[in-house]
Amino acid sequence: MSRFFSEKYASLVPYTPGEQPKDTQYIKLNTNESPFPPSEKAIKAAGEAARELQLYPDPESFALTQAFADILGVKREEVLMTNGSDEILNFAFMAYCDDTHPAVFPNITYGFYPVFAEINRIPYEEIPLRDDFTINVDDYCGIGKTIFIANPNAPTGIALSLAEIEKIVASNPDSIVVVDEAYVDFGAESAVPLIHQYDNLIVTQTCSKSRSMAGARLGFGVANEALIRDLNTIKYSTNPYNINRMTMAAGIGVAQDEAYTKANCKTIMENRAFTMDELKKLGFICTDSMANFIFATHPDLDGEVLYQKLKEKGILVRHFSKPAICAYNRITVGTRAQMEAFIRAVRQIMEETK
Amino acid sequence: MSRFFSEKYASLVPYTPGEQPKDTQYIKLNTNESPFPPSEKAIKAAGEAARELQLYPDPESFALTQAFADILGVKREEVLMTNGSDEILNFAFMAYCDDTHPAVFPNITYGFYPVFAEINRIPYEEIPLRDDFTINVDDYCGIGKTIFIANPNAPTGIALSLAEIEKIVASNPDSIVVVDEAYVDFGAESAVPLIHQYDNLIVTQTCSKSRSMAGARLGFGVANEALIRDLNTIKYSTNPYNINRMTMAAGIGVAQDEAYTKANCKTIMENRAFTMDELKKLGFICTDSMANFIFATHPDLDGEVLYQKLKEKGILVRHFSKPAICAYNRITVGTRAQMEAFIRAVRQIMEETK
Repeated sequence: MSRFFSEKYASLVPYTPGEQPKDTQYIKLNTNESPFPPSEKAIKAAGEAARELQLYPDPESFALTQAFADILGVKREEVLMTNGSDEILNFAFMAYCDDTHPAVFPNITYGFYPVFAEINRIPYEEIPLRDDFTINVDDYCGIGKTIFIANPNAPTGIALSLAEIEKIVASNPDSIVVVDEAYVDFGAESAVPLIHQYDNLIVTQTCSKSRSMAGARLGFGVANEALIRDLNTIKYSTNPYNINRMTMAAGIGVAQDEAYTKANCKTIMENRAFTMDELKKLGFICTDSMANFIFATHPDLDGEVLYQKLKEKGILVRHFSKPAICAYNRITVGTRAQMEAFIRAVRQIMEETK
Repeated sequence: MSRFFSEKYASLVPYTPGEQPKDTQYIKLNTNESPFPPSEKAIKAAGEAARELQLYPDPESFALTQAFADILGVKREEVLMTNGSDEILNFAFMAYCDDTHPAVFPNITYGFYPVFAEINRIPYEEIPLRDDFTINVDDYCGIGKTIFIANPNAPTGIALSLAEIEKIVASNPDSIVVVDEAYVDFGAESAVPLIHQYDNLIVTQTCSKSRSMAGARLGFGVANEALIRDLNTIKYSTNPYNINRMTMAAGIGVAQDEAYTKANCKTIMENRAFTMDELKKLGFICTDSMANFIFATHPDLDGEVLYQKLKEKGILVRHFSKPAICAYNRITVGTRAQMEAFIRAVRQIMEETK
């Protein structure tokens, strides 16, 4: 820190993104990217949009918002498109948390939530998961704080049912509940249909995973019109042109290609089932992941050792040093060939470390 | 506002971007965009990058940052690339302002500064310009607050000399001075060479104006390494993947095409001189603009009336309702043909309103 840095951030610990190595060509199973290229419609539209970069993008993202509203079956006024879902999550922390409305989220979840709380100087509480990494829904019922739930949760992949989400939302009528559905397209149930029933619900999603557009930075929030207006107030006070022209065009393109998105999600789910079966045969314990990653541990193999040895073999997975989960690795589900290479590497490592 | 919106933002008034009309085809001289297409190198690189959107962008923006460091003649560690220059400005408000370090800026300047202060709940002071819209440098000397100076200033276009900027920076050794050089490439002097001499100086620039990339959202800050580390701490706590892949590629492309950028700036300066001459012949008073816009008023023509009548004739300029400047219009400098059309329209309006 320089001598000028404000003391209000003295305890701030920034988020650490997954490794993006520049040297070796790894099989990259560490940042939950899609192994499939973006939709051809997205590529084409983005390339065309690059020709008009001299003009500002539409700050309302009108056409893009309409395209996603149509997919989601809601009104345009019920959607806010953002610079990744991180942006809508940050907006929600800003708009709905303060000293009298602290944030609450599980103690194992997306690592950015405590950082958003810290950067906005919002008090927060972390509620422990059960020993099996499941969320105890009753912990959140009637809690009267601003709730952030990743569903499926990260990095466990475990999902709550729609009925469980509804129970949390219904029991906190005077508090905002944000359901972060970054990974919802790989087998979990979306809470979007509940936004008309509950005025305290915000659902966030991203194009980074199921829509193969992590590099475009496009996410969105879905909620009733009044909440979307609030979130727009935050947007126009920080980043009015939050979606650049190329991402806007790519987003409209991918929205027109739902069949491609759905087919890719199906393949990922098949590859997830294949990989989990193989891991279990090798003695691994896996959570019941509904996401595009597997969260796995082995009774005889140290989590960090496995991470390191996989890296030596050219395969990157994600290991977290947090004690409660340091025995585990989070493995992004890639193509069938990538997952076969991963299983081969794991098998070799197990033989080497016998 | 919904009933959930945090009271901390009760007085927040968001920034209002310039009109982006979706209906008529206007001659758009209202948002200081470049009339020239982006560099062919930027277009090509962005189109290629769209093919790899499934992967996250490099959160360090390593190659892009190096490219701009080379142009600026500084080290990579002295540059932070951001999502428009609005992002680096917001980061500076966050990092260097608090209750004991209030912000200070002119009372007529970029309209986003007070919004950044409000959204970050930072006390701020606005110092009046002189009657001729110039900044009185002595007002800022030894003020001991975090200073934001747009140079050239907006929407006046009037620039301080490098010596005047240095006087402000040198006289506030324990306070950060942010020099916002969004419009510097059209005839003003950049303070970048001072960053090695003064550890309290941050210079911000954008690719939105001189580099024809308003639609890409790319800006940057230049400062000593310690300050850039601070600003990176903020970045990694809000938006780690702040530059998407396509913008990153376009930025590297345009950085390789400085001759194109310089030629466009030269043309804009010529068209500015032509337009100001014509306006003066018609009795207008113009500030001495060093930016890609003209700030002009006429003793016999109401500012808002001129704005409205130009709009009726298919020409959009920017009018601000703030009393001190409501007699003026801000006219973006476009192509020679656009400026000729603008002058013709002004002449017609003057005849009509005689």
